[in-house]
Amino acid sequence: MGKIICAGLGPGDPDLLSVKSDRVIRNARHVAFFRKKGRQGQARSIVKDMLRDDVTEYPMEYPVTTELPFDSPEYRQLLVDFYEDWANRLEDLSRDHDVVVLCEGDPFFYGSFMHLHTRLQGRAEVEVLPAIPGMVGCWNAMDTPFTWGDDVLTVLMGTLPEEDLVRHMQAADALVVMKTGRNLPRVKRALAAAGKLDDAWLVEKGTMPGQRIAKLTEVAADDCPYFAIVLVHGQGRRPETAE
Amino acid sequence: MGKIICAGLGPGDPDLLSVKSDRVIRNARHVAFFRKKGRQGQARSIVKDMLRDDVTEYPMEYPVTTELPFDSPEYRQLLVDFYEDWANRLEDLSRDHDVVVLCEGDPFFYGSFMHLHTRLQGRAEVEVLPAIPGMVGCWNAMDTPFTWGDDVLTVLMGTLPEEDLVRHMQAADALVVMKTGRNLPRVKRALAAAGKLDDAWLVEKGTMPGQRIAKLTEVAADDCPYFAIVLVHGQGRRPETAE
Repeated sequence: MGKIICAGLGPGDPDLLSVKSDRVIRNARHVAFFRKKGRQGQARSIVKDMLRDDVTEYPMEYPVTTELPFDSPEYRQLLVDFYEDWANRLEDLSRDHDVVVLCEGDPFFYGSFMHLHTRLQGRAEVEVLPAIPGMVGCWNAMDTPFTWGDDVLTVLMGTLPEEDLVRHMQAADALVVMKTGRNLPRVKRALAAAGKLDDAWLVEKGTMPGQRIAKLTEVAADDCPYFAIVLVHGQGRRPETAE
Repeated sequence: MGKIICAGLGPGDPDLLSVKSDRVIRNARHVAFFRKKGRQGQARSIVKDMLRDDVTEYPMEYPVTTELPFDSPEYRQLLVDFYEDWANRLEDLSRDHDVVVLCEGDPFFYGSFMHLHTRLQGRAEVEVLPAIPGMVGCWNAMDTPFTWGDDVLTVLMGTLPEEDLVRHMQAADALVVMKTGRNLPRVKRALAAAGKLDDAWLVEKGTMPGQRIAKLTEVAADDCPYFAIVLVHGQGRRPETAE
């Protein structure tokens, strides 16, 4: 009787895994990970020097289609079937073995594993190992304090409607915007409307080879990298001076 | 010529340190850490089984006074002098040795080390090692996904004025409230006003011995633990159903 262990991988540098995740991954005989079809996958590439020679790998390849828009009911159904199928396969595997599922960042913080975690409740023993979220790696890469004192931090997805972005950006002191990519032009407009564009930074591939840090005002309009996060640092808000 | 390395310790469980912090701490000859006078200190107790026998320890003891209120200019001055003094001492030490400064959670995320980091710029080589923030350890301890989809996450300090707390709590999907302690009654009132008290959890000593998880509505009015965080989970906000 085995269990399913979701090992958080952190922001990308293998040296930033937790001691526990590192140990679990190096000992694993069965390792599953998400990836896009035809790619090695970010999770798999983080652990490339850590896996046993006799490991069995289970790439969980997202369904891709060029015909269906991402937000269509048909695409949603493909995703539901995909998660259902892998929940079944992991449940089966865990009857005889421990299975380690790799997950970038911290699994419970906007992670894909949650779709399996929910489905596996009551069906298999599941353990989740926390990790340094990608955003923490990104602000650390800038070597500058990110939040101080009574700063309010808000984490936003770049997929939100522009007026929602503006409203939240105005209200917060420190900001993290994830899921930027093709949403970056909207994120920039919202930051400008909130008066925070000049203080915003783009961190691409934080803690990884090819890391890049740029002022967002200096990023070209057509430059929308996928593995990127936008950061606005807090300035050390104090209650008595805030209003 | 040495350097000052601030090693983030994560939420409390030594197994959750990064591989890099773990290695640096186990090899350290000079280790500094903040603590209250008369206490061992949380940071020091996390690494209790990791330090070399020949380590030299530098407890940085916060100035305490029973006469001065925390927000008085006199107390502020005591703190400024305290940080200035330790910046000088660490700078001196780092001329001949590497010095490791222990820091709970992630150092750049509301960490005390930032007051030294700022002062040491241009005076010594300083390296900061990221870690799992305390809040990530707390939501992991609940074994439930914390943020999904397009959830907006806001991190608040319990020291903020009640009307600010209410406003931010209303606007966000997922919430973390830190610095609770004696502010917990105000945090509860604000959560109730924002309609989120029934979904709020108190996590005390997350990932540590003595960990406790309780629904906030079931925490007694006079029960205001120090090492506690309040969490409200996101429910997987999607743009098309949010408005």
